[in-house]
Amino acid sequence: MKSKSVILPKDEMPRQWYNILSDIKMNPPLGPDGKPVNPEALTPVFPMPLIEQEVSSERWIDIPEPVLDVYDIWRPSPLTRATGLEKALKTPAKIYIKNEGLSPPGSHKPNTAVPQAYYNKISGIEKITTETGAGQWGSALSFACAQFGLSCKVYMVRISFDQKPYRKTMMETWGGQCISSPSPYTKTGKDALAKDPDTPGSLAISISEAIEDAIGDKTGKSRYSLGSVLNHVMLHQSIIGLEAKKQFEIIGEYPDIVIGCAGGGSNFAGLAFPFVADKINGKEIEIYPVEPKACPTMTRSPFVYDYGDIAGYTPMLPMYSLGHNFVPAPIHAGGLRYHGMAPTVSQLIKEGLITPKSVNQLDAYKAGVLWARTEGFIPAPETNSALAAVVEEALKAKEEGREKIIVASFSGHGLLDLTAYEKYLSGEMAESVVEDDDIIKSCEVFKDYPKPEILKST
Amino acid sequence: MKSKSVILPKDEMPRQWYNILSDIKMNPPLGPDGKPVNPEALTPVFPMPLIEQEVSSERWIDIPEPVLDVYDIWRPSPLTRATGLEKALKTPAKIYIKNEGLSPPGSHKPNTAVPQAYYNKISGIEKITTETGAGQWGSALSFACAQFGLSCKVYMVRISFDQKPYRKTMMETWGGQCISSPSPYTKTGKDALAKDPDTPGSLAISISEAIEDAIGDKTGKSRYSLGSVLNHVMLHQSIIGLEAKKQFEIIGEYPDIVIGCAGGGSNFAGLAFPFVADKINGKEIEIYPVEPKACPTMTRSPFVYDYGDIAGYTPMLPMYSLGHNFVPAPIHAGGLRYHGMAPTVSQLIKEGLITPKSVNQLDAYKAGVLWARTEGFIPAPETNSALAAVVEEALKAKEEGREKIIVASFSGHGLLDLTAYEKYLSGEMAESVVEDDDIIKSCEVFKDYPKPEILKST
Repeated sequence: MKSKSVILPKDEMPRQWYNILSDIKMNPPLGPDGKPVNPEALTPVFPMPLIEQEVSSERWIDIPEPVLDVYDIWRPSPLTRATGLEKALKTPAKIYIKNEGLSPPGSHKPNTAVPQAYYNKISGIEKITTETGAGQWGSALSFACAQFGLSCKVYMVRISFDQKPYRKTMMETWGGQCISSPSPYTKTGKDALAKDPDTPGSLAISISEAIEDAIGDKTGKSRYSLGSVLNHVMLHQSIIGLEAKKQFEIIGEYPDIVIGCAGGGSNFAGLAFPFVADKINGKEIEIYPVEPKACPTMTRSPFVYDYGDIAGYTPMLPMYSLGHNFVPAPIHAGGLRYHGMAPTVSQLIKEGLITPKSVNQLDAYKAGVLWARTEGFIPAPETNSALAAVVEEALKAKEEGREKIIVASFSGHGLLDLTAYEKYLSGEMAESVVEDDDIIKSCEVFKDYPKPEILKST
Repeated sequence: MKSKSVILPKDEMPRQWYNILSDIKMNPPLGPDGKPVNPEALTPVFPMPLIEQEVSSERWIDIPEPVLDVYDIWRPSPLTRATGLEKALKTPAKIYIKNEGLSPPGSHKPNTAVPQAYYNKISGIEKITTETGAGQWGSALSFACAQFGLSCKVYMVRISFDQKPYRKTMMETWGGQCISSPSPYTKTGKDALAKDPDTPGSLAISISEAIEDAIGDKTGKSRYSLGSVLNHVMLHQSIIGLEAKKQFEIIGEYPDIVIGCAGGGSNFAGLAFPFVADKINGKEIEIYPVEPKACPTMTRSPFVYDYGDIAGYTPMLPMYSLGHNFVPAPIHAGGLRYHGMAPTVSQLIKEGLITPKSVNQLDAYKAGVLWARTEGFIPAPETNSALAAVVEEALKAKEEGREKIIVASFSGHGLLDLTAYEKYLSGEMAESVVEDDDIIKSCEVFKDYPKPEILKST
């Protein structure tokens, strides 16, 4: 019997992360004075080892043994051939997914939560604060903090906090604390509530709250953690693509197309960056980050310097951004509702090394249900966006009659997101769109305000 | 780096199931006339290949290729050393679990759902009906039916249907249909609703409804499926223990203690029966099925002939039973709320080959939360009962200063059961008990009515 899945033997697990900063040139983050930020200035927010990784241009960075020990709970993840989906689509394409949904929290997020918890621990930190949108990140950090005996405090975007009470319970089961954001406990939270007591909240608000909490802690033993966007997060996630490359080597294949969903960019980057490295060295390969049309950061926003949060506590980052005041429509893929895009992913788009795509919410769920019925695992809403692009490419390969090899990142399972499936299956899910005027308005924050024309949908 | 998990290579997966009926002598099921049932009489309910397996005494039965192909989606499951839990308990015991929570529906149930769907398919059946309590079984059968293109109709015990709407969505995502039971669509359902419109329902009622639906189908292409109790179900589940034995061989170890939770008995049997075979051949090994004190089928009920359902549609089975009218307390481990116990498991208890244990609900959740914080995965409520026994045995080994090897079946994850965790964590979960009088009363259905004394708690 030939297996659907390529299982990487435990002793062949990668022992170093790949750092894309060794292969591309980036503009530096800017401080409030408009000058490049001195890494030392970030020490109240992050522990030193993570700051060093944030600015490092070393190509390979060792994964510490205690991190490998926790990765061992669920890694290496399988690379699985989607034979059932191929058959349903009658495509000559070979479709593979890298399944990140088998971790205890059910997504790729612990790939960075674990090293972040570890580096905080060895730096003498006792408490980590963070934000979470849909809840995947807050769950992952709570799990990771339990492994290293750290306190974890999560500011959860209010609309998700109210709609997904199970996420809070998940975090609490691992010993984490979960707070509805905006909260009355921070200045940012109080301001947001004063401005609009009924605000659904946003990641940009929650990030500000979590940073404020960490830097305001009098003990000096509290730090903040971000689950996406930053360079060190992309570094940690590279484990996905590094494993996948080894798995393709085992079966003597190499993908023609790499696909991942992108909100802040970390799931896409995790799978794709090790393949981008090959592309820079001349390999022919198409690489697609996929976003929802309702939050079109990569496909309809300008490349600018912008803050990562609403209060401007973060440095200004060079990235595609819809503006830090942008409040995305309440689509079900909460992890894809961020105004910006990782600077590394943004830079690769700018250089033409990767090509963003956007998909409709209903197409995403259609692909997700087809996946569940053919391949078994019920995908996360974010994963569905990637799967919609997979289906599109597989059908294109069928038209062209070409046996293309497609690999996509299956960012997580959707077992905590079944209300969204219920809406889809009962026909109650509406298509979610963004108005041109909303984008134009939220982009007014930029000094180098782009011409409204380029922001309009085409 | 030494890994926590023993991964069985895909090409070493067992290709035959182990049949305990080759090793023990059983009393036959009895028909309404009190005589042994002719297997032919079961053809309106089950397809012939499953009836043959139900009565077979062949030691090894081949697993068909198409079943192996679907098993391949998640099997072999890892055998994982719980180093984090060992450390937390400071025990010299080595604790292993066989993780069945990584299947698409999240439990061990698809181990039998998949072959049941397959044998129905090759027998020309188009629709399968079944019941489900907590929802694990209905989810698993919906998943399996999607793999083979069959319709699936699930009668779900009303109290669970109301409390766990996500289970219904899960089934529907795989194309299944889920109905609150008792329903107005069957005679059994109508009778139950007439008797008590507010009844929370029970597995015994739902089984009757599902059988009635299947045998009443005019097309002749509808059959019923049971997720536990019966011999062929235990047969299919033996894949768990067969894999585990191969995994122990790889590391050169053999367990001193085998533990599994038991509602109908299939999860316990799946891990334990291949080890029972060794015990019959002289191997020294302790084997413990674990049940909740609130539904003490194995520890406080008589060994009798009883029906599997409330309406008496099933044959009478020789088993430990609290009586088919027994309505267990609404504990959160819905999968452990069945009045009877698999005849095979019952027989082994009677012969002293295995020793049942019972645990309190609060101890079970305490063990489950400790597991989540040390080992990552959040266990199903049923699994927590097994984990409570694991903790007990590990602490006993510590007292005795012995390096015992313990293996337990991790029957599933608890991501669809987080409301129960919320109750436990907030201190709102009550201990669940059963009154002596309730057991004595429900046992009055038995002709050979046992002395009330033996039914009382000690």
